[in-house]
Amino acid sequence: MSYQLVILGSGNLATQLSLALQDSGHNIMQVYSPTPEHATTLANKLGCQAVSTLSDVRTDADAYIISVKDDAIKGLAESLCPDRTKAVFMHTAGSVPMEIFDTQAVHYGVLYPMQTFSKTRKVDFKEIPCFVEASDAETLTMIQTLAESISDHVQEVDSSRRAKLHLAAVFAANLTNHCYRLAERILQEEEIDFRLFLPLIKEVAKKVTVMSPKDAQTGPMVRYDVSVMDKQLSLIHDERTRQIYRLMADSIHDDATQHHL
Amino acid sequence: MSYQLVILGSGNLATQLSLALQDSGHNIMQVYSPTPEHATTLANKLGCQAVSTLSDVRTDADAYIISVKDDAIKGLAESLCPDRTKAVFMHTAGSVPMEIFDTQAVHYGVLYPMQTFSKTRKVDFKEIPCFVEASDAETLTMIQTLAESISDHVQEVDSSRRAKLHLAAVFAANLTNHCYRLAERILQEEEIDFRLFLPLIKEVAKKVTVMSPKDAQTGPMVRYDVSVMDKQLSLIHDERTRQIYRLMADSIHDDATQHHL
Repeated sequence: MSYQLVILGSGNLATQLSLALQDSGHNIMQVYSPTPEHATTLANKLGCQAVSTLSDVRTDADAYIISVKDDAIKGLAESLCPDRTKAVFMHTAGSVPMEIFDTQAVHYGVLYPMQTFSKTRKVDFKEIPCFVEASDAETLTMIQTLAESISDHVQEVDSSRRAKLHLAAVFAANLTNHCYRLAERILQEEEIDFRLFLPLIKEVAKKVTVMSPKDAQTGPMVRYDVSVMDKQLSLIHDERTRQIYRLMADSIHDDATQHHL
Repeated sequence: MSYQLVILGSGNLATQLSLALQDSGHNIMQVYSPTPEHATTLANKLGCQAVSTLSDVRTDADAYIISVKDDAIKGLAESLCPDRTKAVFMHTAGSVPMEIFDTQAVHYGVLYPMQTFSKTRKVDFKEIPCFVEASDAETLTMIQTLAESISDHVQEVDSSRRAKLHLAAVFAANLTNHCYRLAERILQEEEIDFRLFLPLIKEVAKKVTVMSPKDAQTGPMVRYDVSVMDKQLSLIHDERTRQIYRLMADSIHDDATQHHL
């Protein structure tokens, strides 16, 4: 089953999602972005039309995929839904309830791919968990079909569980990546190449494929080796980074000793 | 060149290092640990003698590798060095200056492998960066030879740079792993399997092999999307985890806007 789609948005997720959908045989009719250059950049990658005025968005697509900043979703739905009552509307956000479409659209839902996306880095969508939700059974089938055409891991999840998944993903991805970044900043003070740390980073990520992060933990914090921690704190120049170190040290130690589970 | 070695310690690092040294042809004569069962467990893996009394440690080894908690290094050196003035002493700690051996040993140094180790998880030592330092040229050659027999990435680094490397490694490994753990705790509240997050974790770790962590950052914090962040904070029950979220959000946002570099 192949669908006629319009993509609203041109960011990291809109870019990778629309490329994956096109690769799997769907037809991307248009890309909309209020910024003409952004619409054009993505439309050129897809070989389709770029539009930057809402009145130019076609009315005959099977589905409209809204992949923009969370607080811009509602406005787009308000503008587009009234003239397109037969189409399916979906957004791709982790933290926005499906109900944002309630008073706007007839058929609607969510397709949330849980991954970190960059415009220039192509990802293998097949292994990305995609969480779907819909207003009615028929729409769910359509969004599921769309999601299954690009991913092998499609699951139905309601808005409240999706919000928790997104929160956990921020910890597992954005906070993790920022720990790499803080390491990089420390290394830059000594003019040491960050790439030296890639075997360590790789091993930390691989370890949790075979044991829980709780069991995988090592280092001075889990041992609560105060003399090492005091020495390390004295080497950190930035006050906020010192606060992060302290809070994480206490959290790691509590987790190791209090048996939260 | 193959050496006669005694291992002092039986923890994660002592275990993996002694196995790697044995694999590359060195002879591990003894394992010492004050806890007899710990000494025996590692000695059995190596097929060598376990000792738990310092007076039973042989005096004829080429080198003594002290791989114990940081604050136990000095005591071991004080006990062992006087009767073994021809041998080389080295410790394996990231944060302990080489000078800890100053008044104890004649020939001494450091062999610090920068990796996260667990007793049961065998690692490929070849790709682990090993940082070495020594009291004199001859000892440096010996420790370098030892390190190069197990790793392809041996570098000489002084104690002060090594301390910075260890600090950065704590951020890149232990803090990172704790972010996985905090994600796991959020998922457990919803009874969602942590393994669902492995593709995300893998992609975050892979991304920094081709771009800097600063450029790789995505998500609500780098956009400083306050409405998403407020919603997410309301979903976190643990006060310390909320503090970590807030501090990291501010740190990510500052990093994205202030151009530290």
